[in-house]
Amino acid sequence: MINQYMREKSQASSLIRAMFLEGKRLAAIHGAENVYDYSLGNPIVPPPPEVRKAIDDILDDMLPGDVHGYMNNSGYEDVREQLATYENRTKGTKLKGEHVVMTCGAAGAINVVLKTVLEPGDEVLTFAPYFAEYSNYCTNASGVLKVVAPDTETFQPNLKELAQAITERTKVLLINSPNNPSGVIYTEASIIGIAKILEEKQKLYGHSILLLSDEPYREIVYSDVKIPYCLNYYKNSMVIYSYSKSLSLPGERIGYITISPDIEEVEELTVCLSVANRLLGFVNAPSLFQRVAASIIGSSVEVDFYKRNRDELLEVMDELGIEYASPDGTFYLFIKSPTEDDLAFCNKAKEFNLLLVPGRAFGCPGYVRMSYSIPYKNVINSFDAIRKTVAAFR
Amino acid sequence: MINQYMREKSQASSLIRAMFLEGKRLAAIHGAENVYDYSLGNPIVPPPPEVRKAIDDILDDMLPGDVHGYMNNSGYEDVREQLATYENRTKGTKLKGEHVVMTCGAAGAINVVLKTVLEPGDEVLTFAPYFAEYSNYCTNASGVLKVVAPDTETFQPNLKELAQAITERTKVLLINSPNNPSGVIYTEASIIGIAKILEEKQKLYGHSILLLSDEPYREIVYSDVKIPYCLNYYKNSMVIYSYSKSLSLPGERIGYITISPDIEEVEELTVCLSVANRLLGFVNAPSLFQRVAASIIGSSVEVDFYKRNRDELLEVMDELGIEYASPDGTFYLFIKSPTEDDLAFCNKAKEFNLLLVPGRAFGCPGYVRMSYSIPYKNVINSFDAIRKTVAAFR
Repeated sequence: MINQYMREKSQASSLIRAMFLEGKRLAAIHGAENVYDYSLGNPIVPPPPEVRKAIDDILDDMLPGDVHGYMNNSGYEDVREQLATYENRTKGTKLKGEHVVMTCGAAGAINVVLKTVLEPGDEVLTFAPYFAEYSNYCTNASGVLKVVAPDTETFQPNLKELAQAITERTKVLLINSPNNPSGVIYTEASIIGIAKILEEKQKLYGHSILLLSDEPYREIVYSDVKIPYCLNYYKNSMVIYSYSKSLSLPGERIGYITISPDIEEVEELTVCLSVANRLLGFVNAPSLFQRVAASIIGSSVEVDFYKRNRDELLEVMDELGIEYASPDGTFYLFIKSPTEDDLAFCNKAKEFNLLLVPGRAFGCPGYVRMSYSIPYKNVINSFDAIRKTVAAFR
Repeated sequence: MINQYMREKSQASSLIRAMFLEGKRLAAIHGAENVYDYSLGNPIVPPPPEVRKAIDDILDDMLPGDVHGYMNNSGYEDVREQLATYENRTKGTKLKGEHVVMTCGAAGAINVVLKTVLEPGDEVLTFAPYFAEYSNYCTNASGVLKVVAPDTETFQPNLKELAQAITERTKVLLINSPNNPSGVIYTEASIIGIAKILEEKQKLYGHSILLLSDEPYREIVYSDVKIPYCLNYYKNSMVIYSYSKSLSLPGERIGYITISPDIEEVEELTVCLSVANRLLGFVNAPSLFQRVAASIIGSSVEVDFYKRNRDELLEVMDELGIEYASPDGTFYLFIKSPTEDDLAFCNKAKEFNLLLVPGRAFGCPGYVRMSYSIPYKNVINSFDAIRKTVAAFR
């Protein structure tokens, strides 16, 4: 009853499930407070109180058909207008409502875009370390993900490798900043460098290459470092946003795409994204939360919660002389494993009830991801386990 | 920037958009009350008041992380348990929570199932008249939709044609009851007949064939006619349900799959459906509305609104001697065009501000669909236009 592809995918994801269950098993034995589960990417800061108020106001003030009904597959026109205006004010873009497509989260958005632009066999490039799910999304659209080797000095995009990796079949460069798993924000210089290479390669191969930037962690940042907005640097670009992290609403599946008004075939493209939303079965982004997103535009969770955890962890890593990627955003810390075998390090950590994800899961072996979206007390209590794990490899 | 497939799909759906815009254009000229738009499938009865109360109660009583957070990709365990219990009580099944997978509406559900079971090139059969989107869903999963000719005497599944249409590549029979566009409920005799044929063909070809029943209109029925539940008739079956029509929540994208506990490889299959939900980018069904669905289980919109419209329309059709499929459910009436050319009939109707959808859009030329999810007054006012259109062909 099951096809070969899903049979394999199911086996691969049984490893993730196994880790999840291991956390539960350890918590049952040792008590949840004695298990240091840095393996999950689930935001634990509550949504800002504006979310609840927005829901109440919308349900009080609007007709049910305008809150729960069908609309254009790209989303409510007024919601898209409001988001366009917000982006224009905060990012200096010149978007109209038609350049915004509401989606079922960032995952839905990426699938909609890839379905629209990839011909079978087309290549999507991404920089390691990268979010493993990208590979599945490419497969869904009959494309192929190609991974550009990481620059483990800075964890910025490896431009030299990028220039070499682009081929005639390259259709999309998919980037993720602030980055999961590294926590690094791609600098303006990186984006300018990427734009320059893509411009050259477009000319060389005589077809367009889309720069697709996945930015669900845009609001989860700890310094006033500027996050460049790709639409301002490269004509053939789109940015994907999600409220999963910024409003702690991952279960609600709400996000959107912004499309450069200067992108090639802009009118046809916006129509195609709408059609793709429909025919992939998303149909439209969940309607109530479209309205919530628009009505509390610019709201965000309290990031100090995450920052405090990050600062504590950095202190321990510095004390232990462990190197790490510069974590200016997200709630991930990407440390260099004291042994080359990142899996061995994670397995050792488990002996101390410390759950980590090996970097090889992100195309970056020799590193380890720690998701510090966990209670502060757990972070503090985990230090002994971290020290013991590191000591085991010295 | 756009691939060939989406370019074609976009052109095809421009016809639907054109019809939608035509309705708006006519309304602007003649006034909305003088345009009789039977072309859309948008439920206009408001959701029952329990929906609002459930949202309030859930947000008052639960932690945000348990309402808006990530959960198992198949949905909240307690929600799935409650739906399983409900189905067992009302349908006589023996489901456990694991046999229920929450989805982004029925569209998400069909895509998740097809992604899981189809090998490239596998065939999905469906009976005409059928919902045109099925074809896109098959393509998404690298499958092929094959349409079984309609039985225009009864609009029941054409069993004779079915037996002939099944080949070695047939993997799924996708049915839809109560049916869009015919409004017909597939009888118990039809389901028994289908089960018998599928059993035989499974033996003949030595592989399983899935019976997948899409039932978003299950609650929109006008008589006490029994809607057979496929899980009780055929081992290798799943049923898809959506709250889009029963609670008038189409924008919220909430539905679920029930899986026969006796289906081949049941355990692996339920895991694969969960993984498919994730890797197709749905990730999970919208979380708040999962909880809403479970907390007002069994609630439904007031169907008398639709029934009154249906009864009025039947009277006019009888008066005019127009044949139609027996509309025991849904909010669609499928009439026989007085001319063989259903498109010509729809074009003529437009001259009288009457908007209809030609049956060829559902694989059933010579018929016309009327969606009577419109205000009662509009129905009454449309009679003159209906009479004039019919008269033009006599």
